[in-house]
Amino acid sequence: MFDIAEIRKDYIDDKWIVISAERAKRPHQWKEKSSGAPVKKTCPFCYGNEHMTPPEVLAYRQNASTPNTAGWDIRCIPNKFPVLNREGVVSRKTVQIFSHMSGVGAHEIVIETPNHDKTIATLPHAQVDKILKAYQDRYNELCKDDRIKYTLIFKNHGLEAGASLEHPHSQIIATPIIPKRIIEETRNARIHYEATGGSCIYDDVLENELEQKKRIIVSNSEFTAFCPFASSFPFEVWIIPSNHLPSFGGISGKERKALAKVLKYILEKIYKILDNPPYNYIVHTAPCDGKDYRFFHWHIEIIPRLTRIAGFEWGTGFYINPLPPEDAAKFLRMED
Amino acid sequence: MFDIAEIRKDYIDDKWIVISAERAKRPHQWKEKSSGAPVKKTCPFCYGNEHMTPPEVLAYRQNASTPNTAGWDIRCIPNKFPVLNREGVVSRKTVQIFSHMSGVGAHEIVIETPNHDKTIATLPHAQVDKILKAYQDRYNELCKDDRIKYTLIFKNHGLEAGASLEHPHSQIIATPIIPKRIIEETRNARIHYEATGGSCIYDDVLENELEQKKRIIVSNSEFTAFCPFASSFPFEVWIIPSNHLPSFGGISGKERKALAKVLKYILEKIYKILDNPPYNYIVHTAPCDGKDYRFFHWHIEIIPRLTRIAGFEWGTGFYINPLPPEDAAKFLRMED
Repeated sequence: MFDIAEIRKDYIDDKWIVISAERAKRPHQWKEKSSGAPVKKTCPFCYGNEHMTPPEVLAYRQNASTPNTAGWDIRCIPNKFPVLNREGVVSRKTVQIFSHMSGVGAHEIVIETPNHDKTIATLPHAQVDKILKAYQDRYNELCKDDRIKYTLIFKNHGLEAGASLEHPHSQIIATPIIPKRIIEETRNARIHYEATGGSCIYDDVLENELEQKKRIIVSNSEFTAFCPFASSFPFEVWIIPSNHLPSFGGISGKERKALAKVLKYILEKIYKILDNPPYNYIVHTAPCDGKDYRFFHWHIEIIPRLTRIAGFEWGTGFYINPLPPEDAAKFLRMED
Repeated sequence: MFDIAEIRKDYIDDKWIVISAERAKRPHQWKEKSSGAPVKKTCPFCYGNEHMTPPEVLAYRQNASTPNTAGWDIRCIPNKFPVLNREGVVSRKTVQIFSHMSGVGAHEIVIETPNHDKTIATLPHAQVDKILKAYQDRYNELCKDDRIKYTLIFKNHGLEAGASLEHPHSQIIATPIIPKRIIEETRNARIHYEATGGSCIYDDVLENELEQKKRIIVSNSEFTAFCPFASSFPFEVWIIPSNHLPSFGGISGKERKALAKVLKYILEKIYKILDNPPYNYIVHTAPCDGKDYRFFHWHIEIIPRLTRIAGFEWGTGFYINPLPPEDAAKFLRMED
């Protein structure tokens, strides 16, 4: 029905699924089991291989080096196999119980360093700050597009966390719909805001967590990192800024530098204590659909991937966490 | 605060997490990576090892053999390491932004066959029918408990799907709260029912899917198995009964026998085409909190575990499925 990728809505749930079209794949190809360590081959994200990727959309370069050649500190490119297409019109159709829309949006990669073997845990603060600046620059650019309602910044680290390439990178997916979890988060934050006469729930979380202390890992005037009270996963960490701001796109240079420090601090702790485990992090920020989100408060959620998640957990939303967050925070507070 | 297990609510989301208390586990123990094949050791679910498990709560036995000895066809036992406790009072507390309740409920195991190396795909229909009968018997028994609001029946098959023991078994978790996904499902089914003057959304799904045909795998007068329009995962399959019934607990013997056939048929197809992949299935049924769920329609959802799920997917509810369900259904319809 659509000549580009397609996004479909669940019949019952407010959940949208991108149906990508690897239609040629035959059944036997689905049999391949996870193969352990990735095969060593030419890395498209290393210096000298810039021609292997689509042309860059942003790069921080040393000495004004030529675009799409070596000499960059950070390089942002469209994903070679995007789940959503940059071009096209957002059209939405509902026939009977079938709702779908065209897969318009963006899918970009932020290559975090030229160094194949580094990771945020082992990069200098200045480089982490550049990664965050690239997030911010691309975020603000993509949000200008009227067709885009949400811009999702996230990182998959390690094969078990969904990273198919080893070279450190993050992803940005801009969608013509607001993801389900964000709809719920913003709705519940708004309900709290209205019920309390203008109080931000994330500010209240910070205040209460700082008072209880036991789940706090580190806190300064700009950011607090802690294991949330109802952590779904062992060693789950949230980083919440003290400054109430709905959108990540609006952070100041000073805040970004402080975030670089706390993010590296937490990822380094996780790297050391848990021996470089796979993890995901997600920047939770307000939708960019032009509406008022004054009740929302951007933040980052980090999920180390240490336990096997049974399918029933995402089939039911019923989670079992074998590590109390108070203990996780205690471990993450320990001196090296 | 509670002397038994604890269930905590997310600050913002309507999500509840069971915090279990393996408090003794030290950080280095979390480093252990998934180890591939499970270690061979004495199986507590095999004949002769009945003393290794808690005493059975139900067994279908040949020739009236003695409880907790060999000679059973199906054996149901409490989980040796339950995530929720059978005894205790449901107490709920909210202090500031912290809501939690006592971890009262049940966590049981249905041992599906004495044969360690079989699985539903390779068991006879009569045995699959006994498995379903055990689900129904335990379901109805647990639902009698006033403290229990939901009884979740599910199966993890294979290590990657969360099964820590090889011997074929299913699990039943009875909870003092209704899982998030079920709250949403029943709410949206009710909205549809009210908006359409009494139409069941699952009946409408069946009608529309049968009309479109292209996602149907098999359909008879009692059940239809199909790949849902907005499948979150490759080869996701739903089995919906034709007979509108809110609760799985109320199915007739005839329906159960028909379900045994269709469930085995689908799992055998998946077993053959995908080479015995890991999978989960979940019985979606109405809550047992005594309320009226006439708008709901029980069914089964099956999720083969073929792709690595990135954490951002359950962090955002934004799913990417690389296999269109039309193609999955076509593969599953193929003759062997």
